Amino acid sequence: MTPNPLTLLGEHACFGGAQRFYQHESTEIGLPMKFSVFLPPQASAGPVPALLYLAGLTCNEETFTAKAGAQRLAAGLGLALIAPDTSPRGAKVPGEADSWDFGLGAGFYLDATQAPWSQHYRMESWLTAELLPLLTNALPLDAGRIGIFGHSMGGHGALSLALRHPDLFKSVSAFAPICAPSQCPWGRKAFTGYLGADESGWPEHDASALMQRSKSAPYPGGILIDQGLGDKFLAEQLHPELFEAACASAGQPLTLRRHAGYDHGYYFIATFMDEHLKHHARQLLP
Amino acid sequence: MTPNPLTLLGEHACFGGAQRFYQHESTEIGLPMKFSVFLPPQASAGPVPALLYLAGLTCNEETFTAKAGAQRLAAGLGLALIAPDTSPRGAKVPGEADSWDFGLGAGFYLDATQAPWSQHYRMESWLTAELLPLLTNALPLDAGRIGIFGHSMGGHGALSLALRHPDLFKSVSAFAPICAPSQCPWGRKAFTGYLGADESGWPEHDASALMQRSKSAPYPGGILIDQGLGDKFLAEQLHPELFEAACASAGQPLTLRRHAGYDHGYYFIATFMDEHLKHHARQLLP
Repeated sequence: MTPNPLTLLGEHACFGGAQRFYQHESTEIGLPMKFSVFLPPQASAGPVPALLYLAGLTCNEETFTAKAGAQRLAAGLGLALIAPDTSPRGAKVPGEADSWDFGLGAGFYLDATQAPWSQHYRMESWLTAELLPLLTNALPLDAGRIGIFGHSMGGHGALSLALRHPDLFKSVSAFAPICAPSQCPWGRKAFTGYLGADESGWPEHDASALMQRSKSAPYPGGILIDQGLGDKFLAEQLHPELFEAACASAGQPLTLRRHAGYDHGYYFIATFMDEHLKHHARQLLP
Repeated sequence: MTPNPLTLLGEHACFGGAQRFYQHESTEIGLPMKFSVFLPPQASAGPVPALLYLAGLTCNEETFTAKAGAQRLAAGLGLALIAPDTSPRGAKVPGEADSWDFGLGAGFYLDATQAPWSQHYRMESWLTAELLPLLTNALPLDAGRIGIFGHSMGGHGALSLALRHPDLFKSVSAFAPICAPSQCPWGRKAFTGYLGADESGWPEHDASALMQRSKSAPYPGGILIDQGLGDKFLAEQLHPELFEAACASAGQPLTLRRHAGYDHGYYFIATFMDEHLKHHARQLLP
């Protein structure tokens, strides 16, 4: 008999469903990893579609869960929500806590190829090859109806993982994503550290580069991006115009909405959350 | 010319309105005090009704603001939201940081009569005599349409302040309130410390005692209380049945809803937030 590989750390009744916090011993990461799962009330009747939400720099599995206000409409639509932590914890890589934009809280949703990061910093394999299979096996989640979205660094994660794993993810959206990490300071610092100074492999993890070389629309149902124009990181770090141009080049339908006055935080995210959930529901629900 | 007495610490666009964080030099408290204000989009056209939300033990002005998910419907209804901190900060009363349920983060929304607390711990006067007049004067808020609600210790605050200031507050509701502080450990500890071991003055700050002696319904539009039955504090600390009996005695209409499975936290509060906002809107809006 296989023991249940999920350790339930906490559970809260929420909008008729269950907001759970879990930990598991990740084989890919080689450390315990935390994440939250919201199961809507519909999950008690059978498997439901699920959205994987990837958070931004410095965040953890609780940030989206507590601040985004997503459970209300997710319960109404019958969508599960999965929110993982943003990096390994406890890897004890020298220097991993020195920066807020690299290392702890800043895993960038890829597998590091450079020592010493490559031993534990394997966020892409953790999410796509381990966590999602584990969760769709253990919980009433439909492995054939998974969407992905995220914010900032997690928006980069959502766009790049969606483009790298189009068979796994059926819908994608992002809030203020890092659209071209090869061309901004946050991304260049992370890619240099995790992937190495040789930039030849960087385009594999850069959403704009991946889209640019796409010969057809990988998400014909459309991609939704919301971006605040009061976002202090917009000009230097985010570059939505590069992803926009790449989508145009690939024929990928993109709804990129620029909102006057909105900043980079969770009050912005909460404001447009409902429309992201509806965007995914249109593609994941009958 | 009077300088603006409000210092804006931060502002975030949110659901078409503005989520602001302020500080001011409180005369009543004798220290700087922090609070948040959400202004719905309707406030740009003229004064709107406002709800004062009082948070529970250990919370501050950001707890409700970030976690309760109230801004979405408040923007839809045209309600402002005011969320103050839960105690003075920086009073340096010996022992004020020793307990999580007394002193810092635990002001209990009353004016302490006992030294050394009586110098700064004057939450009732701060809120009712200083902050609300200040805000209704400085911001587009309608002083004649103020409602009050809160959670746990803040539920005690909402019910007791509503009953002590029926001319100030036009509507009231609570999430898992401490309904009879004179009869539970949290309340007895706080009242002993702030009001003294002589219990003769305690009923003035005890919602069930105040309601019990009322000769008519102070809130004929009804009071709404939501209580989770999975709340670990319910049996020992909250005693909604005592407030229920007092309301029956006074002829006060009360909707007390007991929800299986829900706990004491913000996932519970968020779940029922919309119905509280609608409860207040029915009484405050034309």
